[in-house]
Amino acid sequence: MTELELKGAAAKKASRILSVAGTENKNNALLKMAELLVQNKDKWLEANKKDIEAAKIAGITDAFLDRLTLTEKRIEEIAKGVKSVAALQDPVGEIISSYTRDDGLKIDQVRVPVGVIGIIFEARPNVAVDAAVLCVKAGNACILRGGKEAINSNICAVNIMRQALELSGLPADCITLVEDTSRQSSNELMSLTQYVDVLIPRGGRGLIRAISENAKVPVIRTGEGVCHIYVDKDADIEMGARILYNAKCSRPSVCNAVECLILHKEIAKDFLEEAEKLLEADNVELRCDDYSAQFVKKFVPASEEDWDTEYDDYILAVKTVESVDEAIEFITKHGTEHSEAIITTNESAAEKFLNEVDAAAVYVNASTRFTDGGEFGMGAEIGISTQKLHARGPMGLKEITSTKYKIYGKGQVR
Amino acid sequence: MTELELKGAAAKKASRILSVAGTENKNNALLKMAELLVQNKDKWLEANKKDIEAAKIAGITDAFLDRLTLTEKRIEEIAKGVKSVAALQDPVGEIISSYTRDDGLKIDQVRVPVGVIGIIFEARPNVAVDAAVLCVKAGNACILRGGKEAINSNICAVNIMRQALELSGLPADCITLVEDTSRQSSNELMSLTQYVDVLIPRGGRGLIRAISENAKVPVIRTGEGVCHIYVDKDADIEMGARILYNAKCSRPSVCNAVECLILHKEIAKDFLEEAEKLLEADNVELRCDDYSAQFVKKFVPASEEDWDTEYDDYILAVKTVESVDEAIEFITKHGTEHSEAIITTNESAAEKFLNEVDAAAVYVNASTRFTDGGEFGMGAEIGISTQKLHARGPMGLKEITSTKYKIYGKGQVR
Repeated sequence: MTELELKGAAAKKASRILSVAGTENKNNALLKMAELLVQNKDKWLEANKKDIEAAKIAGITDAFLDRLTLTEKRIEEIAKGVKSVAALQDPVGEIISSYTRDDGLKIDQVRVPVGVIGIIFEARPNVAVDAAVLCVKAGNACILRGGKEAINSNICAVNIMRQALELSGLPADCITLVEDTSRQSSNELMSLTQYVDVLIPRGGRGLIRAISENAKVPVIRTGEGVCHIYVDKDADIEMGARILYNAKCSRPSVCNAVECLILHKEIAKDFLEEAEKLLEADNVELRCDDYSAQFVKKFVPASEEDWDTEYDDYILAVKTVESVDEAIEFITKHGTEHSEAIITTNESAAEKFLNEVDAAAVYVNASTRFTDGGEFGMGAEIGISTQKLHARGPMGLKEITSTKYKIYGKGQVR
Repeated sequence: MTELELKGAAAKKASRILSVAGTENKNNALLKMAELLVQNKDKWLEANKKDIEAAKIAGITDAFLDRLTLTEKRIEEIAKGVKSVAALQDPVGEIISSYTRDDGLKIDQVRVPVGVIGIIFEARPNVAVDAAVLCVKAGNACILRGGKEAINSNICAVNIMRQALELSGLPADCITLVEDTSRQSSNELMSLTQYVDVLIPRGGRGLIRAISENAKVPVIRTGEGVCHIYVDKDADIEMGARILYNAKCSRPSVCNAVECLILHKEIAKDFLEEAEKLLEADNVELRCDDYSAQFVKKFVPASEEDWDTEYDDYILAVKTVESVDEAIEFITKHGTEHSEAIITTNESAAEKFLNEVDAAAVYVNASTRFTDGGEFGMGAEIGISTQKLHARGPMGLKEITSTKYKIYGKGQVR
């Protein structure tokens, strides 16, 4: 067996023990992790320093460096996050439905863990902890495969978490790190169908597409967001402009930020005059179609490519249409089924948009930025699914579980 | 575009219309299908006759011929099945959860259709109708790709159903048949990610494995069943023998039939004496391990291969163990996560088995044959999922839907 196969087999074995562990046992392990992560923060910071130095030599961007860097404050926040997951309700064991037949056979559908979850992620060392604790809370073992840039930080964090598991009487192999960060190890993990039940990639569009296309293990696609806001001809312009500004500028780098404004032609002039005032405060670059370009002070002409681009930056594409139907068509063609919003005072236009736009989250008169497990009341999230099977939208603890039928008989035959 | 791409695009377009069609509209279409299928039974029987003649020339087995053959009575049963699906509750639009934030933002999770479902199936002409009506009822378009042996029957049935759709004001392309039955068309359908949201293979183990391994479209694996019955040392022997006999002999060809009996050594002798009396009435061949072989009148020695074989026939493997833990280990190694049963009067053994055996359906003191959408109260099923993501166990209408968040705001920003 290869090293990864050995790790996979160990994770599978650990998952069977974890799947029947009690809530208190799992929570104690999580609280112990939070404690030890803070207690060993100097060790963790030191490991992180090695990663930072190597990254600087490799010559990386400031944004990348920022994501890679741990600080005392960040470690405390991570530990706080771990404690908050311990406080969440355990999804395992929930009876989803119960049906008793006329012959007395009782059929319960209950929530159970999935088994082993593979997480492939890029260079944020917090992801190793955030993802692992959600997996463990939901009774799943996890195999983490992080980017090479954070390898020292990840080794340190995983060792601390494994120690906490053991101290709590759970197998250390509930959390495993793939230390080999070559492309080969990633490919091998994607094919480890014997031991891995699902892969959840966390990272940029390139990573997620590559994994979706190549994995043999089932994948939950997350976080690709070309989100739109459509302003209907009947709309509260001031409200719409505030929502647009929030959806574009409150955090442009995330997947639920808006990338394209669609305007009904009848409202385009008035809306853009109002919106440009807000957007120019953050120097948002507008990429306009011909019609909308007439009504702004400053713009770049939009190309076809703009309609399919997730900028993750202070850039906004602007497209005009003649009806809500045309807006829906446009979103169907160019959206990524993540988050889509309509600004309107017309109830039938709102209903049409909510029903006909095919996306994980569809909004009327609110910012797309709300698509998030925390904001949706889930307590935490492991990602935002943009696929239709298994889970759609923010994924909390329930979304990383499966179900099973438990059937209680007294000799019934068919 | 290839012919299949054209069909895919048409199905996708039709699915958008069907996804927002009302329940009454969909039900009327289904009732019209039932009516027309009976009305045109002569045409359908004639098409079926062509298939049967071709199959006879090709030299097929009697069992295969039986599955392929339509009769007036079978057509009436199929039509009755269609009407019963029309009578089921529409899963679309169900509000699964509703959460209102402190800021007044209302977040509803609602049930929506998946979109386009590809069904690849073998030579049973009833599957074309059974699967298509379930898809349509749940608001999904479907692309059917049946085996070449039933092609004339399928063309006829699909044309009748398409006519019913049109007469009911729904797009005919809600139901599409791939008329090219070459391996090439099957491969192309498995890669049609742009238009097909999920593939559900229906047929034998070979078909399902080939599709799971090669498809780029997400697949729901169904119906592979190496099911076990474990008789614990504390068990009602008479009840256990009746359950075993039912699970083996009531319909050996189906996936929820039992293939392997696991016996606690302490009860092996008494149990086998009782069970053999029932099983020998149906000439069930016993493939015994050394220990169990001592207690039966007639047997074939089991080979390693027997533990992993889905016989679908009057054959039963018999394995002895020394504990419930050893039984669970054996099932973990050789089971297909379909249906597993324990016969016991010991409550803690039963709980252990229900919790630790990882399968879609786990039974205590009942026949594995109950794993079926109809028996579970779902009204109908499109297959039995043996995977953990999206759906597990019998899949009714709910299991071929997805969800979406509808969010109602009044200007909320984050």
